[in-house]
Amino acid sequence: MEFHPRRWVRQAGGVSLPEPSRRDTRLDSYVDAYAERTHGLQVSAVRALFAVANRPEVVSLAGGMPNITDLPREALAKAVDRLITDRGTQAMQYGSGQGEPFMRDRIVEVMAEEDVHAHADDVVVTCGSQQALDLVTRVFCDPGDVVLAEGPSYVGALGTFHAYQCEVVHIGMDDEGIDPVALRVALVSLRAAGRRVKFLYTIPNFQNPTGVTQTLRRRHEVIAIAREYDLLIVEDNPYGLLTLDAEPLPALRSLDADHVLYLGSFSKIFAPGFRVGWALAPHAVREKLVLTQEAATLCPPVFSQFAIATYLDEFDWRAQIDVFRGMYRERRDAMMSGLTQHMPEGTTWTHPTGGFFVWVTLPEGLDSQAMLPRAVNARVAYTTGTAFYADGLGSRNMRLSFCFPTPERILEGTRRLGEVMEQELQLHRTFGLGSEPLRHHDLTAGPAPDIS
Amino acid sequence: MEFHPRRWVRQAGGVSLPEPSRRDTRLDSYVDAYAERTHGLQVSAVRALFAVANRPEVVSLAGGMPNITDLPREALAKAVDRLITDRGTQAMQYGSGQGEPFMRDRIVEVMAEEDVHAHADDVVVTCGSQQALDLVTRVFCDPGDVVLAEGPSYVGALGTFHAYQCEVVHIGMDDEGIDPVALRVALVSLRAAGRRVKFLYTIPNFQNPTGVTQTLRRRHEVIAIAREYDLLIVEDNPYGLLTLDAEPLPALRSLDADHVLYLGSFSKIFAPGFRVGWALAPHAVREKLVLTQEAATLCPPVFSQFAIATYLDEFDWRAQIDVFRGMYRERRDAMMSGLTQHMPEGTTWTHPTGGFFVWVTLPEGLDSQAMLPRAVNARVAYTTGTAFYADGLGSRNMRLSFCFPTPERILEGTRRLGEVMEQELQLHRTFGLGSEPLRHHDLTAGPAPDIS
Repeated sequence: MEFHPRRWVRQAGGVSLPEPSRRDTRLDSYVDAYAERTHGLQVSAVRALFAVANRPEVVSLAGGMPNITDLPREALAKAVDRLITDRGTQAMQYGSGQGEPFMRDRIVEVMAEEDVHAHADDVVVTCGSQQALDLVTRVFCDPGDVVLAEGPSYVGALGTFHAYQCEVVHIGMDDEGIDPVALRVALVSLRAAGRRVKFLYTIPNFQNPTGVTQTLRRRHEVIAIAREYDLLIVEDNPYGLLTLDAEPLPALRSLDADHVLYLGSFSKIFAPGFRVGWALAPHAVREKLVLTQEAATLCPPVFSQFAIATYLDEFDWRAQIDVFRGMYRERRDAMMSGLTQHMPEGTTWTHPTGGFFVWVTLPEGLDSQAMLPRAVNARVAYTTGTAFYADGLGSRNMRLSFCFPTPERILEGTRRLGEVMEQELQLHRTFGLGSEPLRHHDLTAGPAPDIS
Repeated sequence: MEFHPRRWVRQAGGVSLPEPSRRDTRLDSYVDAYAERTHGLQVSAVRALFAVANRPEVVSLAGGMPNITDLPREALAKAVDRLITDRGTQAMQYGSGQGEPFMRDRIVEVMAEEDVHAHADDVVVTCGSQQALDLVTRVFCDPGDVVLAEGPSYVGALGTFHAYQCEVVHIGMDDEGIDPVALRVALVSLRAAGRRVKFLYTIPNFQNPTGVTQTLRRRHEVIAIAREYDLLIVEDNPYGLLTLDAEPLPALRSLDADHVLYLGSFSKIFAPGFRVGWALAPHAVREKLVLTQEAATLCPPVFSQFAIATYLDEFDWRAQIDVFRGMYRERRDAMMSGLTQHMPEGTTWTHPTGGFFVWVTLPEGLDSQAMLPRAVNARVAYTTGTAFYADGLGSRNMRLSFCFPTPERILEGTRRLGEVMEQELQLHRTFGLGSEPLRHHDLTAGPAPDIS
């Protein structure tokens, strides 16, 4: 009995073509044994390029790694020392599949910072919020089901949806976030076509990759649509507390507890290496997530939960977030200033009020994928816009990250990038085209090695 | 488009019945939105019982938690203190989806202890070996595919196979491990019936739950069958180094690198709370596992990998395993002695030479599931045999763990258990039956809260 769902869908309303089979026949004796879902996996062809991009002489505006050098490392070392000495036999033992009760209590406190009021019973701790998204997709999605997502959207989420053979339908955005009219049209037409839309995946704050934040008015509109169409919203909020200009807006989950499944993470407000994220889910869904977590890992990292709880208890983590804010603000400002100084005419970009990312639209005639090898050669790297679409769009876009390099390096990076773009434009003006585009890669199989 | 695979298969050759639908309709507004795979998930009905069983007055012979009190906790605390101070910005940062190169090098060294010779390129680090099994199943198994497993087998593995809608066909065992004749018969008849058998899942050393170890002769027979039928073997080896009476036998992977995918873990030779395990896979499969890992968690716990590498580098971990061996040997001996003293006539049990578990067969007329509430009432707990079968067998069996309680508590536990069994037998002799059996539970949906 064979079952062949189509793998990806294009933009809502666009042409939908089944993908060619991608069975890898090179010397793989297991090729006939893999699950259907495995045949869609592909190694990102930009990995080799990223290996070069990670060399110190290259200014990488590509990765999404938080800058954690400001953490109080020595004091933290002493606190973890005491943790192991005093409570090591619990901290190093197996734990609960749902996550430790003390951890879930602390998570409730963290969420309250964004007006999310919840009970610890409804929190499921995960191995990073990536695993939360994986578990949610596993619980809800059969092959061929539709997931709605902003266009563009987070590459790691697209990879997860792809891994479960979902079809992603992108919903357009403007400066206020996801477009509610497009959302409504997509829902109506997909349902009329008999498609099963399982949820809307959205990053309302400082979206990855655009840096755009949903306005409060827009949030209310999105919630109204969710209620009207009984649509589940998966709200991914890793950057919410990293506001750079104003107070955080209320989370979607704070506006509707029944239609929103909230995903959070300690990766950006503390440190990613502990791999602790969470899902806050309606009660019945929470139970499914816990059973799925047990099948997936038995329990999320226990020692990490003890370490993070120790940090939250013994340190002023709110003040530390303020430190992070100041550091990222300086970098964001350097990025804005660099872009203003160095981008050729016809280039536009977003103006993020938080988070890590800026979304750049290149002047007509330029192709971000074709330009990337030359940019890396000129010692600057970025992520191509196509990585953030399931449907091949984004070739005139790039995502620039301001989270990791110093302000000086960010300025220098934008200068190098501006030069490369000028050269490309010159070629375009002279010959009427950018040079040979790279063959098309499927960037959605997984995030780049330096974590997109 | 709907797709309804059958969920479980019975013993090879037995009657195969489709399961009734299990949609939970109690107040779950998402019930129609779940994926097909989610409808098979069930909360273990023994959870409540286990909550009681975890009370201090109860001797729990049920859990599979390693005893880590002998770890050099204070020295380890100092080492992790230095790790955070000196290398905290790397240890707390994102890492590689495949696992850190230094970790994979150390894993190669650990595997060499059991004659497994491998290259670090072919190792994939996971969030516990449970996640390794989850990723392997995800890469290989479509709904309705068959996985072969010893009968009985590890409850957590059955839960994972169930979660991916695989059908488990159990292969009988004897004192030398899995029965090669039964394995051959099952393979031939399943393939003749057009079924896709994806792999054999086996725990060759001190099997969970039986404690039985495959003899060397048997290992060669199993490998010969794998070669003859081109069958992939998934070798799960968490306890291999915890030999109590003799040197470890060579791992299946050491006998055949092409047909064996090896799963290892630091949970039993160091500590489970860090959640670090691994898969050693043929090269082409390794690539699929890494991409799947990236979609599932981005990367396995990074800090945990630094902590474990620190332990392996700065401590005599081989000597520590000898300490563990001595401690578990004392407990195993207490268990054997207690069973000899206290089990009623007609009871039989295995004689493990390592690991954590003993498999007990009750005298005719007794039902381990029906007896469990009375055992817990008498302040002793065990795991019912049915948990370890996908097909309802095991009602006359129980798994006893000697890993966690002290030798004195183990002796006392077997004494209490013997008394309960005597009372049950008395009832049986008087009335011709054990008392009312519990309604049947699906114990395979996930491990019990105290980690089976």
